[in-house]
Amino acid sequence: MLSKTKISEIRALHQAKIRKNERRFIVEGEKVVSELLRSSLNVTLLAALPEYLKLFQSQELPAQVYEISDAELSKISLLTTPNKVLAVAEVPVYQKVLFNNFDGPALMLDGINDPGNLGTIIRTADWFGVKAIFCSPDCVDCFNPKVVQSAMGSLFRIPVYYDHLPLLIRQAKETGRLSIVGATLDGEMNTSISSSSGNTILVMGSESHGISSEVMGLLDSKITIPRFTNSRAESLNAAVACGILLNLLQSK
Amino acid sequence: MLSKTKISEIRALHQAKIRKNERRFIVEGEKVVSELLRSSLNVTLLAALPEYLKLFQSQELPAQVYEISDAELSKISLLTTPNKVLAVAEVPVYQKVLFNNFDGPALMLDGINDPGNLGTIIRTADWFGVKAIFCSPDCVDCFNPKVVQSAMGSLFRIPVYYDHLPLLIRQAKETGRLSIVGATLDGEMNTSISSSSGNTILVMGSESHGISSEVMGLLDSKITIPRFTNSRAESLNAAVACGILLNLLQSK
Repeated sequence: MLSKTKISEIRALHQAKIRKNERRFIVEGEKVVSELLRSSLNVTLLAALPEYLKLFQSQELPAQVYEISDAELSKISLLTTPNKVLAVAEVPVYQKVLFNNFDGPALMLDGINDPGNLGTIIRTADWFGVKAIFCSPDCVDCFNPKVVQSAMGSLFRIPVYYDHLPLLIRQAKETGRLSIVGATLDGEMNTSISSSSGNTILVMGSESHGISSEVMGLLDSKITIPRFTNSRAESLNAAVACGILLNLLQSK
Repeated sequence: MLSKTKISEIRALHQAKIRKNERRFIVEGEKVVSELLRSSLNVTLLAALPEYLKLFQSQELPAQVYEISDAELSKISLLTTPNKVLAVAEVPVYQKVLFNNFDGPALMLDGINDPGNLGTIIRTADWFGVKAIFCSPDCVDCFNPKVVQSAMGSLFRIPVYYDHLPLLIRQAKETGRLSIVGATLDGEMNTSISSSSGNTILVMGSESHGISSEVMGLLDSKITIPRFTNSRAESLNAAVACGILLNLLQSK
């Protein structure tokens, strides 16, 4: 049973501003919450149907556990079809990356603003062993509930940083060891990725405007996914393009 | 100005059953509607803000054109942020594929039920020159508004068929010329795609259950996208996996 105050507290986390102040976020659904409980993240609250809770031993669960009804779950959930459980976790604090000691592959995302795309990119990055994701400040918040859902647990395994990308790129280039490769529509064909994934930082631009001009000027090379000759498609989805390029990098 | 009856008629097309009976569907937003108007599809109605209509000469527009207000657009739109224009088009009728004369690449989708995934797959297929998409009857309707939005105009360029996949696969195999390759988690690594894209039919399974057992038994070969050794990601998003495999096929 959840008090009215508790319900309001949880619902407040649907808003980006409150998440930022409280440094907490919501995770929903059987599968993703189970991944959260297995992760190193600090879970502060779990509200679940009895059928979900009985899958766990009490020592596997966080301190604040509420056994709730379907009706209560609907009140705190953002899903169209609420799925058994909702958890609140602390936003993890990651150590600053020092590029001198950093091995890639890494991703830089320049203005990705669709939550589903960001979540899918995080999931894809996890599959391909990406060590860190650097987002420009205008990317969507990675703790947005839609990002959390589409990342399918991968958000709990890869550190995501928000910072000024040109600054990070300059730091990475100072090592003389890391190669900054941008995905563009006018780059070289993908067969030309010459660096190994270990020293590549792949930069993906925003869905509508691509890579910003400041970042573009700092790239070591540009790469393009070849389109079928007669195709009239204008572009690929950002997450699909990212998957194709990470797969190419990995197969080097 | 739209009459109440017209508004109800349009809103009814938000439902799959009505779309199926009427053989019409809704297309929204400046970019996708402009692609629709350039396509060979029959557009039966256009309802748009004046600023959209003035971009076109009258002969470029369909017979039924309504100049509407923002308020009217909100009434008929399914988008959170309605975008200038909504069109109604006829569901295209495509000729049955005779595999004897068919050159790939083609896609078969076995139970894809997320509209965003199907739309993104159609968009990706268009980029890579896929000639036809065959969906199992339990795939989501490709004229679902969310599919239409995420396909970004590619739905108007690639024929999408709904049929019993095992039947189609048997027909395709009778040609002795087409190779049926399924994306699975236990297949060969992707470097093993040996057939050229022109005679490959790539089969993608559903988001949660993969390829159904009947279809699995009919595959000529299985293919897997290698995962980074230490990755704990369980799977890739269906559209991302499809993009990676189509890119590999094309680069043969």
